[in-house]
Amino acid sequence: MSTMREDADRIIREAIRRVQPDSAVKSALRQKALPPSVHLVAVGKAAWQMAAAAWEELGERIRGGIVITKYGHARGPIGPLEIREAGHPVPDSASFAAADRTMELVGGLSAADMVLFLLSGGGSALFEKPLIPAEELADITRQLLASGADIVEMNTVRKRLSAVKGGRFARLCAPAQVYAVVLSDILGDPLDMIASGPAYPDRSTCDMAVHVAEKYGLRLSEQAWECLRTETPKTLDNVDTVITGSVRQLCDSARETAAALGYEPLVLTDSLCCQAKEAGSFLASMVRCHRGAGRTLALIAGGETVVQLTGSGLGGRNQELALAAAIGIDGLPDAAVFSVGSDGTDGPTDAAGGYVDGSTAAALRALGRPAEAYLADNDSYHALSACGGLIVTGPTGTNVNDLTVALLRG
Amino acid sequence: MSTMREDADRIIREAIRRVQPDSAVKSALRQKALPPSVHLVAVGKAAWQMAAAAWEELGERIRGGIVITKYGHARGPIGPLEIREAGHPVPDSASFAAADRTMELVGGLSAADMVLFLLSGGGSALFEKPLIPAEELADITRQLLASGADIVEMNTVRKRLSAVKGGRFARLCAPAQVYAVVLSDILGDPLDMIASGPAYPDRSTCDMAVHVAEKYGLRLSEQAWECLRTETPKTLDNVDTVITGSVRQLCDSARETAAALGYEPLVLTDSLCCQAKEAGSFLASMVRCHRGAGRTLALIAGGETVVQLTGSGLGGRNQELALAAAIGIDGLPDAAVFSVGSDGTDGPTDAAGGYVDGSTAAALRALGRPAEAYLADNDSYHALSACGGLIVTGPTGTNVNDLTVALLRG
Repeated sequence: MSTMREDADRIIREAIRRVQPDSAVKSALRQKALPPSVHLVAVGKAAWQMAAAAWEELGERIRGGIVITKYGHARGPIGPLEIREAGHPVPDSASFAAADRTMELVGGLSAADMVLFLLSGGGSALFEKPLIPAEELADITRQLLASGADIVEMNTVRKRLSAVKGGRFARLCAPAQVYAVVLSDILGDPLDMIASGPAYPDRSTCDMAVHVAEKYGLRLSEQAWECLRTETPKTLDNVDTVITGSVRQLCDSARETAAALGYEPLVLTDSLCCQAKEAGSFLASMVRCHRGAGRTLALIAGGETVVQLTGSGLGGRNQELALAAAIGIDGLPDAAVFSVGSDGTDGPTDAAGGYVDGSTAAALRALGRPAEAYLADNDSYHALSACGGLIVTGPTGTNVNDLTVALLRG
Repeated sequence: MSTMREDADRIIREAIRRVQPDSAVKSALRQKALPPSVHLVAVGKAAWQMAAAAWEELGERIRGGIVITKYGHARGPIGPLEIREAGHPVPDSASFAAADRTMELVGGLSAADMVLFLLSGGGSALFEKPLIPAEELADITRQLLASGADIVEMNTVRKRLSAVKGGRFARLCAPAQVYAVVLSDILGDPLDMIASGPAYPDRSTCDMAVHVAEKYGLRLSEQAWECLRTETPKTLDNVDTVITGSVRQLCDSARETAAALGYEPLVLTDSLCCQAKEAGSFLASMVRCHRGAGRTLALIAGGETVVQLTGSGLGGRNQELALAAAIGIDGLPDAAVFSVGSDGTDGPTDAAGGYVDGSTAAALRALGRPAEAYLADNDSYHALSACGGLIVTGPTGTNVNDLTVALLRG
């Protein structure tokens, strides 16, 4: 029989594999009946990997297209595709040229054509075609940043100043069909927010945009005011969207692997966002409650916790969560908690996260410094390092938040 | 169809009723086949209510006995029972006299007799018979308090200095049978800790007691050293114990009422102990995750959270938890979270807790001060007061921690 640590390592390995861009794209392509040939448009920081995976999966069925990613992120040619790099986080002339070129490519398509649109984070800057002079767009962005407007307010204005944001790119592809595969790195998967939603109906309205401009006293040209008064698409009947590589898939994978290992899996949340050590305490209290009922459980949470710094130690949110949980499951022979960042990095450390079980707290006491002392100093890295509790994966090539699991053997 | 607020109020009402001393005692007495007549010994802050409930349930089957409670807590005669009041939290001569009288009452019982032992918090001080002079006991207690010894270490020593603690009272009742009904107010129900466990086998040993005395350099008389070297009962074959009125029953009641109201209930934990607002955030993230799947859920947690004070507002841990959850479920039309102290008191307020739903955060914004601002000032009372979110029950006469529930209608 495997140890709980072995189970943890297997759950982590499978989950990270599931959300890597190439697996994520391939699985999305297998979900959809695609026509014999497609046009590809890949935009975002993971555009190159996503396009390469699509090429591996579809090969010559990709008739042509374009890949637009951040400077330094392209890794060579992919079949017949144009590969372009552009500015991020501030769009530059290469961003504008790439959008122009893409509009040319999708301009003359017919209803029988399909655009495979591969979208990842960063696309908002990398893929841009402003409807006003670039200098005025930069000035409005500066005004918005200085005004205290929140991200939703900023996007409500900026979508209307762009020819491709807020669903407008999909409208430009019509009458061709668009199959949008979105690699999500934002909790809750708000499709109109990821890369400003080039292929997703916009929920904001002109009234809202004008209200934001008035609220913060933005100085705008008459041309920009006219843009704010022009509505974005509210429905798009030529688009089919699938979200992939999201924290939800991280949780789904953990659920399936845990079930295969004999645990009864329960996904608690995929948008965990509270303090790391409090989440560890809450999870440990759930483990204590369900002990003794004979159930073999895997409690699964995805999301991204935060660390409240009170000390000067070394650690990360996943390691801190695990260390706090170690206190709550102290002495339980049948329980373990682990937490890991899907990008393989947790805080400024070489670890991806931490694993603890019912013996961890005692091991630390025996070494002369209790878990509570390490925790008060935010020094989870050294605590877990001292008792073999670090999880080290190296960089994974993806980033869809964290996975946290409590295991209980009944 | 009832509103979610009505559902919440009903869940709270039923749960508090379940854990009140009288319901708790009556339900415990119905679980056990009692002989035609019993002797009653009731000890603790809830002793009078517990004894009165037993008298209502059993009437003349109670042949006689004694009720020992805190000064001001007796409310009149109960059948043939002696009613005594004594010192708490520091035992006084009335505590010693009450224990003496109790030992007389149970002294000559036979194997056919049964002692109905009703125990609640505070019994450790109210019911005491020291094996050393009272002055030395007081001195040792002072030494222990000044030494930094934890509560387990203190009890390990003090149990051995008492004729009734650490299972010794039950031994004194032998050969009579003891049916112990314990009203629990401690998370996790450690029976050897509640009132220092007069009728429960002691887990601590003489070696541990001597170790504590040496570790902290206690100054003890030869008589006290001799007590430390005398073992407490490790098994008790004349005692049957039932825990009642515990936080677990609070959760069980909530589960049953929620199920009757059409929710699929899930008890997450009965030992919640993390920061109040973080627990609210975690629960809200669970609600968000389970939305849209069509399930009508009640997520239930029992325990006692803590508040980290950063502001100067008015509130309590239950109100703070609810207010934090309001931010997390902002805009969801089908979700509510509530949290309530079973004693009817939450912090220094006249409320027992708080109720929020998906409209609460918007209501506060409309009133000009967002939930986040109230929360940063620990001012949950005024936030909930402004939007009708206070739960007011008045004092309930019991205290078994808090009940927190998230409701989701699919």
